Amino acid sequence: MRLAVDAMGGDHAPESIVKGCEKALEVYEDLHIIFVGDKEKITPLLTKNERVEIIHTDVVITGEDSPVRAVRRKKNSSLVLTVQQVKEGQADAAISAGNTGALMTAGLLVVGRMKGIERPALSPMLPTKNGDGFLLLDVGANMDAKPSHLIQYAYMGDVYMKKVRGIDNPRIGLLNVGSEAGKGTDLTKHVFARLSESSLNFVGNVEARELLDGAADVVICDGFSGNLVLKSIEGTALSLFSILKDELTSSLKNKLAAGVLKPSFKKVKEKMDYSEYGGAGLFGLQAPVIKAHGSSDEQAFFSAVKQAKTMYEQNVTETIKKAVELMPAQEEDYS
Amino acid sequence: MRLAVDAMGGDHAPESIVKGCEKALEVYEDLHIIFVGDKEKITPLLTKNERVEIIHTDVVITGEDSPVRAVRRKKNSSLVLTVQQVKEGQADAAISAGNTGALMTAGLLVVGRMKGIERPALSPMLPTKNGDGFLLLDVGANMDAKPSHLIQYAYMGDVYMKKVRGIDNPRIGLLNVGSEAGKGTDLTKHVFARLSESSLNFVGNVEARELLDGAADVVICDGFSGNLVLKSIEGTALSLFSILKDELTSSLKNKLAAGVLKPSFKKVKEKMDYSEYGGAGLFGLQAPVIKAHGSSDEQAFFSAVKQAKTMYEQNVTETIKKAVELMPAQEEDYS
Repeated sequence: MRLAVDAMGGDHAPESIVKGCEKALEVYEDLHIIFVGDKEKITPLLTKNERVEIIHTDVVITGEDSPVRAVRRKKNSSLVLTVQQVKEGQADAAISAGNTGALMTAGLLVVGRMKGIERPALSPMLPTKNGDGFLLLDVGANMDAKPSHLIQYAYMGDVYMKKVRGIDNPRIGLLNVGSEAGKGTDLTKHVFARLSESSLNFVGNVEARELLDGAADVVICDGFSGNLVLKSIEGTALSLFSILKDELTSSLKNKLAAGVLKPSFKKVKEKMDYSEYGGAGLFGLQAPVIKAHGSSDEQAFFSAVKQAKTMYEQNVTETIKKAVELMPAQEEDYS
Repeated sequence: MRLAVDAMGGDHAPESIVKGCEKALEVYEDLHIIFVGDKEKITPLLTKNERVEIIHTDVVITGEDSPVRAVRRKKNSSLVLTVQQVKEGQADAAISAGNTGALMTAGLLVVGRMKGIERPALSPMLPTKNGDGFLLLDVGANMDAKPSHLIQYAYMGDVYMKKVRGIDNPRIGLLNVGSEAGKGTDLTKHVFARLSESSLNFVGNVEARELLDGAADVVICDGFSGNLVLKSIEGTALSLFSILKDELTSSLKNKLAAGVLKPSFKKVKEKMDYSEYGGAGLFGLQAPVIKAHGSSDEQAFFSAVKQAKTMYEQNVTETIKKAVELMPAQEEDYS
């Protein structure tokens, strides 16, 4: 498999990116990596050169760049060139830990939507208490979503969880403000009715409070809601850890006791760390494009590579395409 | 001040309700409480009978009741009769810790909307790291909100924070998925533009991740989004505490160290406990109606009584009415 990697994206680029990829090269003997980025910065980090090539560019899209403008103007940026490799058939999949909006834009404009898919979805795995995790889609690719978009998310999530996470009959949940059928917005009411008639394993509405309990394997929602939920979970966890840290270092006695518990705190943090599950897939494009977390370390980037490899080998893109073709004809969306 | 109290609503009714009210009666000498509920259960809990009366009913709306149906059919329930006291001028404000949906419905159908307000908003105070807290509205009264609704929320929140929380020039934020003006849905883009031209202290978009950092004093959003964020924060905090508890009691060594830190963990929990800030106000009704948290203990219910009293004394309802009358004429909503 040939994988294009944006070596310059994310908080710890290019070090963590290159190291994570080298780890993957050791594990997967059929993996070939195309690094895109500053050759002078990448080369010294490489410990071997087999199954590796570098496409040089010193143009970078930063986190502050406006996504659409950046993709249009910085056509030679590492991010755009990485995605370009897939479009041109030089690579089977692409990964970047850079600007999320720019990667979504490049995915859409350069790789393009899969035939039949109305809107791609940004789809991360989030942690659950029992460690299984769940797929949340969409978390921000598509703000004003229509029922038909969410129905397609459900089918795409179903394929992903079967093929990549090995779950037989994934439980599909609809993010909502209550468990009853009549709850929520016009959007959720329409989607609830349609999913109830589908062949998917639809388990009904799922409340935000139950997400980390593992109420469903796939949770679908509009991109605005998904982004709010994702960031609320992240923000609350970070705030709690920060308050906890302040309290536990407020006296010598506390520091000593907290020292004993350090391995336990680390375990708790790891349980909440969704980078273990890989990055967020951009589902609905013509080839796998993965957004690795911006703060990816070596291990997190390795997970993203593993995810891209599994998506490619399990033929996720083709399977989604077939699933969407077989979807029952949809009623007109409400306007 | 005369306060109507649903004595039968919430997980710890009527004990915590009655005890919280008795505490308030001690502190506020001008407070008169009308308990609505089962006289036989309430009377034995009362330690004195001054400034207290009981309206007897043995009909109760439960958490499982469907809100609209329950309010229509159980006209003699403690919840409906409590709200009725306000409508009939027997009480200046009403509180219930019962079924949230039923209380919103009763507020709307029995007390009625304030003239000029299109949609009331359910508005809890949520915790921030520094302890100041912020007001989030709406968290579920109005699912498919229009721009004009959110603008009214902003004016109502502004009045509340000034009058009840004593903040001079409250910072008004718009819940969104990014900080730039063009972010989000059609709804948020419209609201952003209108608030930018208003006389309010609009601080722009606020991301869900920044909420607990105290990015704004008032955060406005549609009821669907607000409910998701509220429940994501609650769910994440509960999950983290539960994972933490499992880890910290997994060995004798851990248990001993955790024992030393018990007071610190308690402090952290208290920081995340928003019942200290009172209940959630139903803003935009013709009189103060407060939803106390369903799990309210004595102290939390006391906070809700204090909040109702301050809202009444500070004339919040009248001030909101005036603020809404003075609002600049609004453009037509997009459809």
